[in-house]
Amino acid sequence: SATCTIADYLLERLVQLKVTNIFGVPGDFNLGFLDYIEDHPKLEWPGNCNELNAAYAADGYARVKEGSLGVLITTFGVGELSATNGVAGAFSEHVPILHIVGVPSTAQQRSKPMLHHTLGDGRYDAYHVASKQFVKADANLTDKNTAAAEIDRLLTDCVVNGRPAYLMLPTDIVHERISSKRLLTPLNVQPPENDPESEDFVCDEIVKLVDAADGDVIVLVDACTIRHNVKDETLALLEKTKFPVYAAPMGKTAVPEDYERYGGIYVGSISRPEIKEKVENAKLILSIGGLRSDFNTGNFTYQIPQNRTIELHSDHTRVQYATFEGIGMKRLLPKLTGRLQPFKDSAKLITVPKFTLPVPDEGNETISHLWLWPRVGKFFKAGDVVVAETGTSSFGILDVPLPHGAVFLSQILWGSIGWTVGSTLGAAIAARDIGLGRTILFVGDGSIQLTVQELSTMIRTGVKPIIFLLNNSGYTIERYLHGEKRRYNDIVNWKWQKLLEVMGGTEGETCQSYLVKTKTELSNLLDNEEFAKADKIQLVEMIMPMHDAPRALKVQAELSGKSNKYVA
Amino acid sequence: SATCTIADYLLERLVQLKVTNIFGVPGDFNLGFLDYIEDHPKLEWPGNCNELNAAYAADGYARVKEGSLGVLITTFGVGELSATNGVAGAFSEHVPILHIVGVPSTAQQRSKPMLHHTLGDGRYDAYHVASKQFVKADANLTDKNTAAAEIDRLLTDCVVNGRPAYLMLPTDIVHERISSKRLLTPLNVQPPENDPESEDFVCDEIVKLVDAADGDVIVLVDACTIRHNVKDETLALLEKTKFPVYAAPMGKTAVPEDYERYGGIYVGSISRPEIKEKVENAKLILSIGGLRSDFNTGNFTYQIPQNRTIELHSDHTRVQYATFEGIGMKRLLPKLTGRLQPFKDSAKLITVPKFTLPVPDEGNETISHLWLWPRVGKFFKAGDVVVAETGTSSFGILDVPLPHGAVFLSQILWGSIGWTVGSTLGAAIAARDIGLGRTILFVGDGSIQLTVQELSTMIRTGVKPIIFLLNNSGYTIERYLHGEKRRYNDIVNWKWQKLLEVMGGTEGETCQSYLVKTKTELSNLLDNEEFAKADKIQLVEMIMPMHDAPRALKVQAELSGKSNKYVA
Ligand SMILES: Cc1ncc(C[n+]2csc(CCOP(=O)(O)OP(=O)(O)O)c2C)c(N)n1
Ligand SMILES: Cc1ncc(C[n+]2csc(CCOP(=O)(O)OP(=O)(O)O)c2C)c(N)n1
Ligand SMILES: [Mg+2]
Ligand SMILES: [Mg+2]
Repeated sequence: SATCTIADYLLERLVQLKVTNIFGVPGDFNLGFLDYIEDHPKLEWPGNCNELNAAYAADGYARVKEGSLGVLITTFGVGELSATNGVAGAFSEHVPILHIVGVPSTAQQRSKPMLHHTLGDGRYDAYHVASKQFVKADANLTDKNTAAAEIDRLLTDCVVNGRPAYLMLPTDIVHERISSKRLLTPLNVQPPENDPESEDFVCDEIVKLVDAADGDVIVLVDACTIRHNVKDETLALLEKTKFPVYAAPMGKTAVPEDYERYGGIYVGSISRPEIKEKVENAKLILSIGGLRSDFNTGNFTYQIPQNRTIELHSDHTRVQYATFEGIGMKRLLPKLTGRLQPFKDSAKLITVPKFTLPVPDEGNETISHLWLWPRVGKFFKAGDVVVAETGTSSFGILDVPLPHGAVFLSQILWGSIGWTVGSTLGAAIAARDIGLGRTILFVGDGSIQLTVQELSTMIRTGVKPIIFLLNNSGYTIERYLHGEKRRYNDIVNWKWQKLLEVMGGTEGETCQSYLVKTKTELSNLLDNEEFAKADKIQLVEMIMPMHDAPRALKVQAELSGKSNKYVA
Repeated sequence: SATCTIADYLLERLVQLKVTNIFGVPGDFNLGFLDYIEDHPKLEWPGNCNELNAAYAADGYARVKEGSLGVLITTFGVGELSATNGVAGAFSEHVPILHIVGVPSTAQQRSKPMLHHTLGDGRYDAYHVASKQFVKADANLTDKNTAAAEIDRLLTDCVVNGRPAYLMLPTDIVHERISSKRLLTPLNVQPPENDPESEDFVCDEIVKLVDAADGDVIVLVDACTIRHNVKDETLALLEKTKFPVYAAPMGKTAVPEDYERYGGIYVGSISRPEIKEKVENAKLILSIGGLRSDFNTGNFTYQIPQNRTIELHSDHTRVQYATFEGIGMKRLLPKLTGRLQPFKDSAKLITVPKFTLPVPDEGNETISHLWLWPRVGKFFKAGDVVVAETGTSSFGILDVPLPHGAVFLSQILWGSIGWTVGSTLGAAIAARDIGLGRTILFVGDGSIQLTVQELSTMIRTGVKPIIFLLNNSGYTIERYLHGEKRRYNDIVNWKWQKLLEVMGGTEGETCQSYLVKTKTELSNLLDNEEFAKADKIQLVEMIMPMHDAPRALKVQAELSGKSNKYVA
């Protein structure tokens, strides 16, 4: 019967899951496996500058390529441990990435020589042990007889749960031949069916509450609506029920922001007042995929009592105070849609103020946050992928309505700065794959310094993001939290205009850099069709005041000051 | 009685241990502590671009500042996990660094809210658990009553063992006041005394063997001679006994390479033939601080039987087949010196061929490895700090005799590429502190891309390393190991000449870049006194053939091919 190498088995499974690009850095324990990738007709190896950036790229790729996963390859010890933060971030934010680590051969794992990249004390399992903290599933592929099943288990756990998995691939195992029979059956990466009786019961409970609320229900979409792939199911429910819908920051673009019944971003006390009022006064809140972290909830300032709340999660449901384990939203949502449709007439009576953000006239030329965000809002097009770095950007972008089909990426829970540079690479590659529009990044001068080298990989792979670099002379978000005038919040001012060129671009041909210091300059650039076409990688350095921040960040800083002695 | 804050207690201990610079990146869980550093008259905060680079800098600092330690500060989760590889590398290579992590307050650690930088599932201990794999000691400073003792324990364990320690510093604990009384007693960071009876016994055993060998003994110094601070004790033994001495790669500069009885680098089958013969034919080998990793031993090709070997280690001694636990070399060496001195007359009879490397005349202008290394050898001066990156550099530099008082840094066991860029920053700062000479880095075009942003911190802090960048169009060392013509071993060619300028330098004023394509160009540059003065940061891009490597790497590649199926 048919056989294939373990390397090919693994790659074939990835291709079946629609993976087209694999991120990572070569190292002598993974080189043999990389041959299989380079030789594979359907797979690309962009080749990252370092492993953390590669992990971020895999994360960005997975976020844009919904239903698929990101794949990262590193080498034993030095490589994999460089990626730890990236993998942990994917865990925290429910992103499925498979971390494949090229490790010493099975013979070496038994005899434990003092190889390079070891800790020098014979512990060959230390990295594996550490990695378990940050993944949903893990395996050391030392036995060819179980290899295929182990690969299938990891991939399934990874995609179904939206969490990273960790796979140690010994140098010799790569080439071992096994039966390829299992490949004929595609992996089932859908969440399991719910127990029908409990599911019916939960539906009944929810219908009762909606009934009692007289259809005065608002839906609040959040991170896991996106991460656990229920955007379509959610939209179907919304369209059939006409319930108004708002989004938490991490749920931004879970529902198209031009949807007529969409009211904008709810983030507790940080919300715009009209949004706060609408959400908190509803008789019932149906929360879909909620993730109540500090920055996602205005520092835990939701004014919504639990007895007015229904929470749908990927693996459980909560109705008021009762938890129903194992009732996942992927299966529950379609059932609910049918049951809730009758309420649509009463729901229609509830008005939803349009989510808009007019450009203010400040009467000066300073590029302020107050002006910047609405202004760039007018620049976005349908299907753009918008990435915002932790810092003033991730707060500023929230109030901007994105156009139809736009995809918003940010790391609001994990908040690792530098993440956007790697993830923009992955996102742009995925966007190219699936036919989305431009990839547009907003990143601070501090954050980009952490991971700047990945611009080079963007240039090499020919993706063409527009990078808006907020040059505000350092770590402005931190100045708001603590140490306004401290030197530790200063950074070195780089010559940003020459950066793309240094990293392999040819200015005017494959890349273009801009410096804008005034509102007029930025406006003109945004109105320039050549620029907007995004047919090369572009970097726009925007000079902004050191002590300016979006409204939401100012409020958040005050709130965290109250809850955190340190910052006081 | 006198009190101080816990922050001040910790910083005072560091100052007592001669720490002058603390590396790291700000984050909201460490900002309050950074205030104490910024306000401290004896401490500097260089401010790194990212956490991995900061860890590397702390490592480089500790290596140059013998007897002291490196200190690294990161923030909860995102920061600390970015540094994992750097800390693990310090563990592997016996480098004392203290990793201080700013973590949520003690109250938050109890109530476990879903804060940013958490995994979102309430596990506040996950990073701590993972970190334990890579440190000698760790603590979460939640109790002010034990804080001082815990700090002392960690610092002692760190410095005495030459390994990293991990300290979680909650935001509130920083400001707590405690008694400062313990500060009056400096920490004892010397290794413990050996048990006198066993020590005497071991001395007798060794003397017997030396006697039987008729004084035909060679000393082999290795990594831990440097890392466990027995360079002086070793030199005293050598001078009193006149035993010839050789160094393993990781022991390079443990003994000054101009020492008259020093014969060069022994690395098993990879050694230069005359060295191999001398070492392997000695009747007895006294190994000091040995660390037998693959790249440090010519892929485990020592031809020295155990019954002709005595091994001195930091915490045990091995005489032929017998292990004596707890007999550490720091205390044993001075005793041995007295006992072995009488053998000096027979030892003197053994000739030691001078360790030299003449510059060959290749009759062409290509900058080959064969020519490069001896040529730069003539450029070094007494007291230079020479840093060599994993790749062709770390192999090439081995055969070059370094001048008196030079310090050699490389990561031959851990081998994490990019390490030199961060560690050069730390090394240069430490060298400035203690009055060493220039810091000179050899780094590959592939490796520098991993950590390039730290050039910016060099510029900011005003250190002035000379950076020799080997531009050989990619990962040449890997091409020798596997995938000679594979695309995954290619990289993007950057415009290296503009790099320092982009990262904050002013060409011709604070920085200078050079491009050399021929032997003559490089020779002229090396002979230029302005250049050699190193009064600004300088980068020399050297164009070299893609498929050229130092002799030692070629042999190593063949040897690992034999032992590693993958590479075959
Ligand atoms: C890996 C990592 N290191 C440190 C931090 C702490 N941190 C959060 S925001 C920030 C500053 C960001 O500065 P910048 O990108 O310039 O943003 P802006 O000035 O627009 O606020 C820092 C250092 C972090 N979140 N992640
Ligand atoms: C963090 C890390 N990632 C990957 C590797 C695998 N690796 C070892 S050497 C090397 C290539 C180095 O290339 P370069 O710096 O250009 O050196 P040279 O061409 O002089 O050999 C790589 C990718 C590693 N050792 N460490
Ligand atoms: Mg900034
Ligand atoms: Mg190279």
